[in-house]
Amino acid sequence: MDLLYILDMIGTGAFAASGAFAGIRRGMDLLGVLVLGLVTATGGGTIRDILLGDFPPFCLKDESYLYLSILVGILVFALHRRMGFIRYPLLYFDAIGLGTFVVIGTTKAIDFQLGGLSAVLLGTMTATAGGVLRDILSSRVPLILRREIYATCCLAGGALLVGLHNVGAPVILSSVLAAVLVILVRLLAIQYDWALPRARSVE
Amino acid sequence: MDLLYILDMIGTGAFAASGAFAGIRRGMDLLGVLVLGLVTATGGGTIRDILLGDFPPFCLKDESYLYLSILVGILVFALHRRMGFIRYPLLYFDAIGLGTFVVIGTTKAIDFQLGGLSAVLLGTMTATAGGVLRDILSSRVPLILRREIYATCCLAGGALLVGLHNVGAPVILSSVLAAVLVILVRLLAIQYDWALPRARSVE
Amino acid sequence: MDLLYILDMIGTGAFAASGAFAGIRRGMDLLGVLVLGLVTATGGGTIRDILLGDFPPFCLKDESYLYLSILVGILVFALHRRMGFIRYPLLYFDAIGLGTFVVIGTTKAIDFQLGGLSAVLLGTMTATAGGVLRDILSSRVPLILRREIYATCCLAGGALLVGLHNVGAPVILSSVLAAVLVILVRLLAIQYDWALPRARSVE
Repeated sequence: MDLLYILDMIGTGAFAASGAFAGIRRGMDLLGVLVLGLVTATGGGTIRDILLGDFPPFCLKDESYLYLSILVGILVFALHRRMGFIRYPLLYFDAIGLGTFVVIGTTKAIDFQLGGLSAVLLGTMTATAGGVLRDILSSRVPLILRREIYATCCLAGGALLVGLHNVGAPVILSSVLAAVLVILVRLLAIQYDWALPRARSVE
Repeated sequence: MDLLYILDMIGTGAFAASGAFAGIRRGMDLLGVLVLGLVTATGGGTIRDILLGDFPPFCLKDESYLYLSILVGILVFALHRRMGFIRYPLLYFDAIGLGTFVVIGTTKAIDFQLGGLSAVLLGTMTATAGGVLRDILSSRVPLILRREIYATCCLAGGALLVGLHNVGAPVILSSVLAAVLVILVRLLAIQYDWALPRARSVE
Repeated sequence: MDLLYILDMIGTGAFAASGAFAGIRRGMDLLGVLVLGLVTATGGGTIRDILLGDFPPFCLKDESYLYLSILVGILVFALHRRMGFIRYPLLYFDAIGLGTFVVIGTTKAIDFQLGGLSAVLLGTMTATAGGVLRDILSSRVPLILRREIYATCCLAGGALLVGLHNVGAPVILSSVLAAVLVILVRLLAIQYDWALPRARSVE
């Protein structure tokens, strides 16, 4: 469980950094940059906890998530012109966050006795809803609705976890396999620029 | 209550189809189309349940809503170019959904001891908030804020239901009358292209 | 506590008016104007109550907030062309609302045993999230993410309140000082057109 917490913090930091960079690209002031970082890092888990009826949400119970997100946001704001070197490693940390958040969210939904499909959706939401909120606050169509299979790898990881849970596999093993699946597919998708089929418009 | 459940499913399917069509018009990939369908169909009831503090929300308790929405989304995605014939009947199913959702939402709010105005607002939200979320996710000003009396017929139906409840009318009768009012006004509004007054801008 | 309720109502009315004016500027019909007024006035407190797990939210418990917001929205819609004279005083009422909402939100979060940073964030959210929802519904990047130190004065007021609470200062004194700080900084910011630093974009 300690390892999971460390991975959770790595993911939180990576998501906060990606949100803060988005704020800077959009010319926001310090406050906007911090808000986008905070929302990207904690929004998904907060929506998950609201839907599960678990109050207050995780980041209001353990304020480390808030402090870490704000600290990362300040660092990005202050140093972003010297942080070009972080761009590439950030993709890896981001993928680690994605895998970790899917596992945490899906597991929590199973613990709350939700059905399989609900658990997969909540796990995916944990990993992606922060980015959706970031895009809504920036008045953009959310990235996951526009391109890449960003959410698809979360759905796959969540489904694997629910399947392994249903056949009674050990929790540690299932968690590791599901997280690795998400991270691998995510990194391969970046590498090979995978995309889902797109419908031709009817009008 | 069985009839109500059937009408609820018809409405859910119609709302999911309208959300999926919106995703296709905006050039989204399969995942985006499914998400817009799901959100349009279940978003209103989910927000209602969150505001009532009834966790988990209805669609995480009874996953039929999720499965139906996803199935409809897949069908629309696969067959949309051959589904022109469904456009016109869809307006009727959509109106049925609107009336049913208003009745379900208003009734549930009354059961939770909310005041009359709150019950009307929650009933209207049940029927319209899914479409609002769909438009927010597509980065558009929500349709109900821009034109037509889409929400107005919901408010009227909810108010009728609360009024009949307050004078002690039988539940079945009140529900049927309120649903019919919503559906009728909605269809007449489409037929005659009714609109609410618009303010002339001050700047 | 009676004074707090009066200030709360003044703030609610001012926020509803600002939301309704926003709806009129964007060419919305009567319903859109009322919805924007309602959301601006009650959205922040509603999100606070959801995050605290306090159901139903304040405005569904005490419907005065709903009736007042709708009434103000109707007045603005009907009389907005003759209401130029209200624009300037409205800034003062708005500042009063800002200060009052910060104090109410921060105090409630402290009562719910949240940590200091969470309490400050919830207080700020109480005062600003309604405006964020208004901007999201209008498909704009929220104002507080774009300019001015609108939210910064809320953060300062919330932090002062938490600090005074932690050193055991009397509740009345802390509340008054925190509210006055928010209102003063807000009015000075308008007067002197203060702004936070903005990052130079990296791309």
